[in-house]
Amino acid sequence: MPYALHYWPTIQGRGEFVRLALEAAGAPYVDVAREEGGMPKVKHYLASPGIPRPPFAPPFLVDGRVVVAQTAAILQYLGPRLGLVGKREADALWTHQIQLTIADFVVEVHDTHHPVASNLYYEDQIAEAKRRATDFRKERLPKFMGWFEAVLQRNPRNGKPASTPHLVGGRLSYADLSLFQVVDGLRYAFPKATARVLKRAPMVVALHAGVAAHRRLRGYLDSERRIAFNEEGIFRRYPELDG
Amino acid sequence: MPYALHYWPTIQGRGEFVRLALEAAGAPYVDVAREEGGMPKVKHYLASPGIPRPPFAPPFLVDGRVVVAQTAAILQYLGPRLGLVGKREADALWTHQIQLTIADFVVEVHDTHHPVASNLYYEDQIAEAKRRATDFRKERLPKFMGWFEAVLQRNPRNGKPASTPHLVGGRLSYADLSLFQVVDGLRYAFPKATARVLKRAPMVVALHAGVAAHRRLRGYLDSERRIAFNEEGIFRRYPELDG
Repeated sequence: MPYALHYWPTIQGRGEFVRLALEAAGAPYVDVAREEGGMPKVKHYLASPGIPRPPFAPPFLVDGRVVVAQTAAILQYLGPRLGLVGKREADALWTHQIQLTIADFVVEVHDTHHPVASNLYYEDQIAEAKRRATDFRKERLPKFMGWFEAVLQRNPRNGKPASTPHLVGGRLSYADLSLFQVVDGLRYAFPKATARVLKRAPMVVALHAGVAAHRRLRGYLDSERRIAFNEEGIFRRYPELDG
Repeated sequence: MPYALHYWPTIQGRGEFVRLALEAAGAPYVDVAREEGGMPKVKHYLASPGIPRPPFAPPFLVDGRVVVAQTAAILQYLGPRLGLVGKREADALWTHQIQLTIADFVVEVHDTHHPVASNLYYEDQIAEAKRRATDFRKERLPKFMGWFEAVLQRNPRNGKPASTPHLVGGRLSYADLSLFQVVDGLRYAFPKATARVLKRAPMVVALHAGVAAHRRLRGYLDSERRIAFNEEGIFRRYPELDG
């Protein structure tokens, strides 16, 4: 039975971190809201009183009788099944920690355009967004990217300059895919600030390029299945927030 | 060798979720910054270029050669070792998902007083904080508490009205301890809004009371080791943000 990803059908959002893992592994999956008639099946899990262990929010993955919510937990679940995490327990633990740090960063990216409330329009919180985005560009973005770069630099398996670096060990993991996605999104949302900060993160740049060249991933990214970045998702291009 | 918790010494903060698990289990641990001379040892792991897998931020736990950062990952690591998670894989997965949702909620609580930047003083973002706290009280707080209540209501093991309910299965888990901490903190920070929302969450209230009466936990909460809530932590009492 294919994995069933339950997520909003018109944005990359947090669901994209799961899509990338499934696509990179060539795993059979259904993107439920896109392929099976929109959000009713998703909302069933969220709102039906008969669901014993209800997800708080999308994305969540249904695998037979298993329902897993929370992006990082979904990837932790899929990692060994898709061959996208190291087999040693220490490697799996470290990969999960990196993923949780990416999750924290994604909240901060989102909150640059919604610092007051997700329920309000961007237009109703532009003043606050400008203040928050300034701090994000000056403090948070360099701090997180510096940490990802340090993780890559200190991975002893990233020896050869010409090969794709990895966050953990010597093989592609779901955390690599997620960092690719973060860089891709940042370049869309904050082209100026991202170009500046990536000058000091050459291995992050190399990881992004290497993942983008992954054969199956490349096919996905060039396909109709890859939703384009847009101003409903996490990474939004509002020029007044870049600089 | 005792577990070594690395965290800020003057606040409960995210470290408290780990302290509660260690204390409830009666596990031997050292609260490094409080017992061994402040932050230098903590900062060593964060800033020394010789650390191969550096934590992004406190809290992190050192257990022999293992270093685990990210509160939810620390608890996932400790859970089976301290007997604070169910043995079935599905129960462990569900407990972790709940913990990750608690982590998301904790970010939102923090951002009520720091919606613009953690680097700035509260006094420099009061206007934004008031807007964000209003949304938090009206939308987010009821939504999260409603979900925790639903999780408790739907746990088939929570049958008897007189006994302490649990989030997962029939025994105390680290997620129960964390939900206790969230309720405790909310009552400190938002006494009015919390009293209102808890009227519709009787099982959350019962869980809080049951955990507070746990013998070892009670000893901890009454001891000097429990740092009092204060205006440097996550849960801060700013009356202008309550209502």
